[in-house]
Amino acid sequence: MARWEPGARERLQAAALDLFAARGFEQTTAADIAQSVGLTERTFFRYFTDKREVLFAGQGVFQGVFIDGVVAAPADASTMDTVEFALRSASSFFPDERRPYSRLRQTVIDANPSLQERELLKMAWLGAGIAAALRDRGIPEPHATLAAETGVTVFGVAFGQWIADGEERSLADIEREVFQHLRILTVPTA
Amino acid sequence: MARWEPGARERLQAAALDLFAARGFEQTTAADIAQSVGLTERTFFRYFTDKREVLFAGQGVFQGVFIDGVVAAPADASTMDTVEFALRSASSFFPDERRPYSRLRQTVIDANPSLQERELLKMAWLGAGIAAALRDRGIPEPHATLAAETGVTVFGVAFGQWIADGEERSLADIEREVFQHLRILTVPTA
Repeated sequence: MARWEPGARERLQAAALDLFAARGFEQTTAADIAQSVGLTERTFFRYFTDKREVLFAGQGVFQGVFIDGVVAAPADASTMDTVEFALRSASSFFPDERRPYSRLRQTVIDANPSLQERELLKMAWLGAGIAAALRDRGIPEPHATLAAETGVTVFGVAFGQWIADGEERSLADIEREVFQHLRILTVPTA
Repeated sequence: MARWEPGARERLQAAALDLFAARGFEQTTAADIAQSVGLTERTFFRYFTDKREVLFAGQGVFQGVFIDGVVAAPADASTMDTVEFALRSASSFFPDERRPYSRLRQTVIDANPSLQERELLKMAWLGAGIAAALRDRGIPEPHATLAAETGVTVFGVAFGQWIADGEERSLADIEREVFQHLRILTVPTA
């Protein structure tokens, strides 16, 4: 008898993160998460395959906003500008209201090696996805992979700054600055 | 009664790779590997913690050659030139004689998601290790991480080309070309 639970998914996600942060990921069960918001373990498993996936549930949407940016970039944009466009598009996925959530999520991930591996896999998929979208625009290899993975590196560095204590700039602003650092770093030297 | 087995480690590694490639990683046991070179399973576990680690046994040395390159780079080298120095140093770890081994190893890894995750972790550690070595040279963040991870991307792309069918150029030559691609990609556009 599967009852519809309004907002159950979001409530479970918020509760899971709070419990992971307070008790530790390993010490929290799916049943603990469900009970803390008055739901059953069975309801939990209607929404998530396991407790780890609660932290990675938005991955399809996350990757989608980057791909959308690649597709929407002007036809005459350079390869790297197209990647910058993808990152700017993705920054809409991380409005400032989301910063406390992202910060807490990162704390949980940093404390657990298996979650770190899962996060690496997510970023590797992101790089592969952006590279595929660039090839669809006619960009050949190795440019597509090189640009896509460089974009993922810029995103990772910018994201790390965005969730740092006391940081107040938007993700888009930080991304712009990190791209600038990258361009300075890669200027050919005499 | 631990007997000393001359070259046992190398024989086990070569046998493991052949079996993984022929039968599949999942279908090969530590006992199979040991038996194929006339050793016992017990001997296998004196050299390796598990069959997966046979494919990642050289990781410390692998990472070390990059770090050595960072340390050995001229004091006045730019950050990105230091990273290029690290990659050139690492290419000595992959002489052309090693190409068939590297090619076969990649085939095995590509066929198995858990090995792919392990390889991602190895590359993430490599990026973190190079970034730490750059910080030791006084290079501040985010430059250290940005340059280190960009270097890992260049290495990954170059390595992929090096093991491609029919490729005959040295890894160092390919790395040089990929760095050149990167510099062209990141040139600011008007």
